[in-house]
Amino acid sequence: MSKPIIAVTMGDPAGVGPEVCLQLLANAAIREVAIPVIFGDARLLARCARQTGLPAPKRILSEIEWDEKCATLDEPAVLDLFGFDAEGFTPGVVSAKTGAAAYRYIEKSIQAALAKQVAAVATAPINKEALRAAGIMYPGHTEMFAEKMASERSCMTFFSDEMICSLVTVHIGYQEVVPALTSARILEVIELTATAVQRALGRKPRLAVCGLNPHAGEHGLFGQGEEEKIIQPAIAAAQAKGMTIEGPLPPDTAFIAAKRKTVDAYICMYHDQALIPLKALAFDSAVNTTLGLPVPRTSVDHGTACDIAWQGKANGGSLLAAVQLAAKMAS
Amino acid sequence: MSKPIIAVTMGDPAGVGPEVCLQLLANAAIREVAIPVIFGDARLLARCARQTGLPAPKRILSEIEWDEKCATLDEPAVLDLFGFDAEGFTPGVVSAKTGAAAYRYIEKSIQAALAKQVAAVATAPINKEALRAAGIMYPGHTEMFAEKMASERSCMTFFSDEMICSLVTVHIGYQEVVPALTSARILEVIELTATAVQRALGRKPRLAVCGLNPHAGEHGLFGQGEEEKIIQPAIAAAQAKGMTIEGPLPPDTAFIAAKRKTVDAYICMYHDQALIPLKALAFDSAVNTTLGLPVPRTSVDHGTACDIAWQGKANGGSLLAAVQLAAKMAS
Repeated sequence: MSKPIIAVTMGDPAGVGPEVCLQLLANAAIREVAIPVIFGDARLLARCARQTGLPAPKRILSEIEWDEKCATLDEPAVLDLFGFDAEGFTPGVVSAKTGAAAYRYIEKSIQAALAKQVAAVATAPINKEALRAAGIMYPGHTEMFAEKMASERSCMTFFSDEMICSLVTVHIGYQEVVPALTSARILEVIELTATAVQRALGRKPRLAVCGLNPHAGEHGLFGQGEEEKIIQPAIAAAQAKGMTIEGPLPPDTAFIAAKRKTVDAYICMYHDQALIPLKALAFDSAVNTTLGLPVPRTSVDHGTACDIAWQGKANGGSLLAAVQLAAKMAS
Repeated sequence: MSKPIIAVTMGDPAGVGPEVCLQLLANAAIREVAIPVIFGDARLLARCARQTGLPAPKRILSEIEWDEKCATLDEPAVLDLFGFDAEGFTPGVVSAKTGAAAYRYIEKSIQAALAKQVAAVATAPINKEALRAAGIMYPGHTEMFAEKMASERSCMTFFSDEMICSLVTVHIGYQEVVPALTSARILEVIELTATAVQRALGRKPRLAVCGLNPHAGEHGLFGQGEEEKIIQPAIAAAQAKGMTIEGPLPPDTAFIAAKRKTVDAYICMYHDQALIPLKALAFDSAVNTTLGLPVPRTSVDHGTACDIAWQGKANGGSLLAAVQLAAKMAS
């Protein structure tokens, strides 16, 4: 059985992306399940290898070679997208230049995914300020992939050993959440989650939907009936489609240890409802994914960490987990 | 040094309250730091002891004896409030009768606290439906104590080994939170927390205030500026008073393991912002307290658990922790 090729974007050159990519290329375990290809800059990776003491990449492909050989590639490689001044910048300091480079690696990975040259994409961290300085105004990877892959439906989902959770709303203010909640959107996130978690776990998942208010409204005692009016109909529709799903759960007890053992994936109404427990429990091991795209997209769960970048201190575990999950979802 | 007398309300007779009180009376360690007095029913405790195999209470005081002897009491005891049909009810089944009894124990404990007969109160679990059936409409202990003790300022605070957190708003709906947030209320909760945590830890606490929006608004990117307009002024006022306090923190990273090591107590804007991480991390060990009362009030962090009540299965650890904390805060 052939292993899936996973595009791995190198992230912002000034951050920890280059060194976690070097760690990935040197990792033996990943070769058992995937062929990672770093979408980045070969000269920059060579400089980073010298500076951090990590092994330099062995197999380097130009864009022309990539188009010719990607179908038969059988080992980890770097796709050299070139054009970045790999010697003339300061590691640890993001800029318009590093932001533009990071964006270029992502654009190229999306092209490769749409051309079916890769089976999935895993992304190293980017820096929002650097992107903005370069005139690129997306809030993050999720929105870039959703727009450029023209996905009608997508959602952000986190996988970790402690819990899996999908977000109905993401980067909007506290008071913008309720106007954005609809039964249709909740059902969409339930369906995307059910499909992806089924693929990742290899069995029908047990899903749980969180309420919005304290104690999930406690039968109308708190809130304005959002559980009954908005959330419950989505759960009923999912049940009618045969899914194993419960809720709306009181949010504060939804994530206790005993409950987590009985739930494969949570559907959360807002950013912090999902990310407070996820990060409290599994800060270093979570993988961020975008569901609903033509190919799976996963991401590290950390930022560019410029304060420790290029010092050989970065922990490549999150990128490794992201590539492993991408391979599992692609197969 | 004399040990503080702690009133321990027995909770709803049908729940696990009676047996965790029996466990407390039999506990040797608690006698080193406090003199617990169960405000409950002696005949009912005797029945519960027979049924569960726990030791029956030894020292029983009538109300008249209590008034005479409480000042010189030197061992754990039961204050027998009588009047409940201890043989003619079904353990595990709450009713108007059990709710009324539970309420009577609380009322009496408040009287004793206001009369300075006890140094603090710890409460076993009550059942809201039983209270309502008895015509008692308080949402919970916190509101009863705040009203009957005529506290102008109070707040709900949780103590656990993993984290300590205070709530600016508690049992209101998601959409009611922002209208209830004011700089004055946040400062009040900061001040109550600083005083109580100083007493519990024996040193000046390091406080952290959470933001409201994802990423604490990310400099105006999400939300309507609640962090700058409402939360920041309260933090600045606390800093001006000499407190060690930071924030508004991005809520999703506020509770990661590394951050928790540097924060003694969190000020949280809404119920689930505090209780999702608290219960995910420390479900069984948290103690609920009401700050701002004339005497400290602590509570178990579990409900009546009627499904396991009177079966000898209940874990008395939470009540023990509540009494220990009450003793610490009273001294």
